[in-house]
Amino acid sequence: MAYPQTTFPHTHFSSPSFISRRRDVVYSTTLLYQLNVLKSTGRYDAFKLKWHPSYHDKPDVWPVPNHLFWDSDVAKWIEGACYFLQREENPHIDVAVRELVAMIRSAQQTDGYLNIHFTVVEPSKRFTNLRDLHELYNAGHLIEAALAHSQCYGDDSLMEPILKYVDLLCLTFGPTPEQKHGYPGHPEIELALLRLYAKNKNPKHLALAEYFIAERGNPTGQDGRHYYDVEAEARGDREHERPVYYPKSRSYCYQQAHEPIVEQQTIEGHAVRAMYLLTAVADLRLWKNMTEKKMYLTGGIGAQKQWEGFGIDYFLPSGTDEGGCYAETCAAIGVMMLAERLLQLDLDGKYADIMELCFYNAVMTGMASNGKQFTYINQLASSDSDLSRRAEWFTCACCPPNVTRLLGYIGGYLWSFRTDENEKSAAVDIHMYSSATLSIPVGDSVVEIEQSSNWPWEGKIEFAIRNPAEVATTIKLRIPGWAATWQISPDLPNAQPDKGYISLPPDWLNAHPNFHLEIPLLPRFISPHPYTNQNIVALARGPIVYCVEDVDNPWVDDHFKNLLLDPSCSVTERTMSTSTSEVGESYIGLTAHNAASHLLGDSGQLAPHVPFNSSPRVQQPGIEQLYFIPYALRDNRGGKGHMRVGIRRKQ
Amino acid sequence: MAYPQTTFPHTHFSSPSFISRRRDVVYSTTLLYQLNVLKSTGRYDAFKLKWHPSYHDKPDVWPVPNHLFWDSDVAKWIEGACYFLQREENPHIDVAVRELVAMIRSAQQTDGYLNIHFTVVEPSKRFTNLRDLHELYNAGHLIEAALAHSQCYGDDSLMEPILKYVDLLCLTFGPTPEQKHGYPGHPEIELALLRLYAKNKNPKHLALAEYFIAERGNPTGQDGRHYYDVEAEARGDREHERPVYYPKSRSYCYQQAHEPIVEQQTIEGHAVRAMYLLTAVADLRLWKNMTEKKMYLTGGIGAQKQWEGFGIDYFLPSGTDEGGCYAETCAAIGVMMLAERLLQLDLDGKYADIMELCFYNAVMTGMASNGKQFTYINQLASSDSDLSRRAEWFTCACCPPNVTRLLGYIGGYLWSFRTDENEKSAAVDIHMYSSATLSIPVGDSVVEIEQSSNWPWEGKIEFAIRNPAEVATTIKLRIPGWAATWQISPDLPNAQPDKGYISLPPDWLNAHPNFHLEIPLLPRFISPHPYTNQNIVALARGPIVYCVEDVDNPWVDDHFKNLLLDPSCSVTERTMSTSTSEVGESYIGLTAHNAASHLLGDSGQLAPHVPFNSSPRVQQPGIEQLYFIPYALRDNRGGKGHMRVGIRRKQ
Repeated sequence: MAYPQTTFPHTHFSSPSFISRRRDVVYSTTLLYQLNVLKSTGRYDAFKLKWHPSYHDKPDVWPVPNHLFWDSDVAKWIEGACYFLQREENPHIDVAVRELVAMIRSAQQTDGYLNIHFTVVEPSKRFTNLRDLHELYNAGHLIEAALAHSQCYGDDSLMEPILKYVDLLCLTFGPTPEQKHGYPGHPEIELALLRLYAKNKNPKHLALAEYFIAERGNPTGQDGRHYYDVEAEARGDREHERPVYYPKSRSYCYQQAHEPIVEQQTIEGHAVRAMYLLTAVADLRLWKNMTEKKMYLTGGIGAQKQWEGFGIDYFLPSGTDEGGCYAETCAAIGVMMLAERLLQLDLDGKYADIMELCFYNAVMTGMASNGKQFTYINQLASSDSDLSRRAEWFTCACCPPNVTRLLGYIGGYLWSFRTDENEKSAAVDIHMYSSATLSIPVGDSVVEIEQSSNWPWEGKIEFAIRNPAEVATTIKLRIPGWAATWQISPDLPNAQPDKGYISLPPDWLNAHPNFHLEIPLLPRFISPHPYTNQNIVALARGPIVYCVEDVDNPWVDDHFKNLLLDPSCSVTERTMSTSTSEVGESYIGLTAHNAASHLLGDSGQLAPHVPFNSSPRVQQPGIEQLYFIPYALRDNRGGKGHMRVGIRRKQ
Repeated sequence: MAYPQTTFPHTHFSSPSFISRRRDVVYSTTLLYQLNVLKSTGRYDAFKLKWHPSYHDKPDVWPVPNHLFWDSDVAKWIEGACYFLQREENPHIDVAVRELVAMIRSAQQTDGYLNIHFTVVEPSKRFTNLRDLHELYNAGHLIEAALAHSQCYGDDSLMEPILKYVDLLCLTFGPTPEQKHGYPGHPEIELALLRLYAKNKNPKHLALAEYFIAERGNPTGQDGRHYYDVEAEARGDREHERPVYYPKSRSYCYQQAHEPIVEQQTIEGHAVRAMYLLTAVADLRLWKNMTEKKMYLTGGIGAQKQWEGFGIDYFLPSGTDEGGCYAETCAAIGVMMLAERLLQLDLDGKYADIMELCFYNAVMTGMASNGKQFTYINQLASSDSDLSRRAEWFTCACCPPNVTRLLGYIGGYLWSFRTDENEKSAAVDIHMYSSATLSIPVGDSVVEIEQSSNWPWEGKIEFAIRNPAEVATTIKLRIPGWAATWQISPDLPNAQPDKGYISLPPDWLNAHPNFHLEIPLLPRFISPHPYTNQNIVALARGPIVYCVEDVDNPWVDDHFKNLLLDPSCSVTERTMSTSTSEVGESYIGLTAHNAASHLLGDSGQLAPHVPFNSSPRVQQPGIEQLYFIPYALRDNRGGKGHMRVGIRRKQ
């Protein structure tokens, strides 16, 4: 299977679209903004292996030192930078990448070991706490950085030390008695090793990835016991000593290590870890459990703050004051990574629907329109304790560079393709719409597929195929599951989607190199599953999920908690131009007319009972116009931070 | 303030009623059943201070030894037995009480110390873990047993050793530098000491109670630090070593010790601890937070299993599969204890409404009709993992003897009274209805007030006052908050409830020594507050909250999770006779006609979205008759354990 991180250079974004605008912001602003933060916080120079004053800090989340992720912060920035440098040169970014690579090379120990914390702060504690301390997670991100770097620069200056480090890992971990039978507390290196194997075909790398995956959760892996138990005992941990993210002792589901992955029936624990692990194993069973029972309307996952992860089935409150809502940006990026793997295994629009849902909502909400503020947690409703606000940075800064690198290779998500040089054929599956051109070399020829649209705001996508006569090209076009109708012009006889994709055969494409697909984007009401006990409705239009914000509805003083919405109302669209919207994007807002009212306060006289009253307990007059904007564009215009996606349904 | 544990002998239950039938079951069966369990489990002989094999057991809930509560199990049984022995002799029970008292006397150490675990198992660890180890909680229950015993037997054979133990506690705990500045992790001794003080007027006992209350949560109480921190450090605990009931380190809100009680704004932590503490301090602010935002429809409190206590405001899921529901029997008994205290301070029917709600629902559901099975957790909906089932006993057996002792002195909750011997007057506030006679000595006279009713099944209560001419008697009759109408006959001119009570002045009573109150008991639908996100309706009738059970609705296979109920339906009553009902009580069942249907399953094709559909997503045909029975009477007739109180409301 090809990887989007490898195939994205085949895609060239053309006329402005939502995606290309976000990429422009990242390249013009975010990469340099994040570089400055790396420098000002000490991360940039950390591979020089000098002591930084913050290394003395008490951990925010014991036993995890605050700086433990610095290796990965740097690695993710390099990875993202290298993706963008392949698009266009930038001397400032180039210099930084070269300097960082030199520092990383210089940081390598003689045996190949490469890690900031365990070289500078606790050199004697290497590989003694795989469960909590992100050592192998950092290694995974270094591998991904090296892959991006070698693809961009065409040299091995970063790959060389990383391969040397991987050699050490291959010696250290494995099934022989002398090796440690451990695996990372935070999966990531597995998918990185699989990508490394795809590039270099070194079977050692595949074997280590498979070992980490298969050994995970083995109840008798080390000396007849769970590796994490043996490891903890060796550290001198006590039975009831546990990190705050463990609801009880031995909560190994936090790391998806409570049982072997093949035996797990429901998706549990830390959401990002789960996604990174499943991306490596492309597990379908748990995908189904996740999307049907543990995913928010926005594509966000993870209701529980304590372990940054999944609650029980259907436990999906909208915000802190209702029981939680985490929906970490990185987790939604992880869902996209997993969806992309599943699409490669089984072309089914369900995966692409979720991939697109996550991108336009749970992921894109994670960065401000100016490219300089970010979220980590993405609640579906604000509260006094958690306003709808982005931040400039985080102590644990996994999310901002993750958005950067995703946008760097997002072209790889738009479509996937296969070619057969002998048969002179190409097959392209188009998953997401935008304005971009895909160039596919087939032998000496190049097939070009250009799509032009103002997606996701407008539903008409024009296609132009530049297909050499000798290449038989087949295209599959995704028809989103939410699309009530769609039309291809010129007419495609007997067109019926198969698992969400319409097939355009070579003959038809030769006859119609210019065609268009039209998917009417109409506002629609959506709800979560009734088992969530969220009697709410939300507005969506195409892949975009909407929210209400106080900027447009300034009367709000309760985070829209008492708002009642009648979903039988009329909803109109309004085009918000760039100049007035201040979100760097001309977008479609929605207005619900005469649809909203307020819940009447209960006196509490008969509490805990509220007497049932057949007439709606609503306050008159209602709200004539209730204004919605895309959830991803929230908190770009100031305001007081009141926001809500799902609104209480009027009975 | 008089205590119901002291005043109950003034009440004599007369013709059969729900309450007297429960009392009969306890006296004829439960007390002896529990005595046998005490004997078979080792509890009965434990004060002989011999080693019991179970003392070796690993704690179910570290660090709390399973047998740690044995002192209180025995004490609560003695207390309950003494209440019942005051009603009627029972040689078998009398012998056991005498034997237990002798064992307790023999168990006392020379310095007065009296505790099984810390004498037999860990004698060197006395008073080293007040936070977790129930040492003072056990002492509190011994005090309460001694009070009941001396009232019943008229001797000090139990009170004597207990007072000696209390003397030791008064020496050990207090404000002087030599004393420990600690307080119990589980409140109980505070209310016991206040009752002891009410009896003996020893200021040392009042001072110790006040010290425990005021010192609680002091951030600088011991050596400038929190007592529990100092205590833990002295034990050698590590910072991140914590019991499973602590969601994080230093979760002192579990014990309501996170800040001084007067500074606490919301009710938090372990529900039983909170109630026992608040009963001692009779706190109104936290009562309001609890009843309006943290109480179930049944009067149950505590949503969170991990700490057996309160969740955030309005977090009240119905069962395990929806996020939790604990509603421990002891906690509901604690609510009654607190409500009774508040009623004495401020005669307001709101407190009596909750007291009665708890009694008939959250408490009475805790014991089977046969008096030999009990619940600890009382969920409002069953699930496959937690069926609606009672158990024969528990390792931590706080609840069964708590029901026993409550029913022993329940007469003290029916009414409260004050007399003035000089003025020759009596004032009686009637909080709960049943069939019983209250005898109040006023000087040489006795005022008798008799109420006769089939409450809670029928709403007509007949009163007969036998009032000596020279005593001016005033009665206040509670009109429940849920009563839409009521009538007193003969007519009482200008009768208007003042805070839920109708006042019957002496003149009127002299003219009408026989009168009746009629409160029509009509089925009514109730809901929890909308903020709970529980879009459910439940049926109530009078103080009784109803549920659906599979015995009457045998088609159910999903715990009624997909059931939809239309609250505009017609509801009829059906009288269930003793012979057919097998619940030891002739009671009123309810039937909802043509009101129920099933939610249509969602295919999940567009998950996580469910497309909004204006037509109800219900399956036809519906259910012609849906049968309800009182929640307190669930699980008395076999069946498969499917039960639900609040049913999803049909849109």
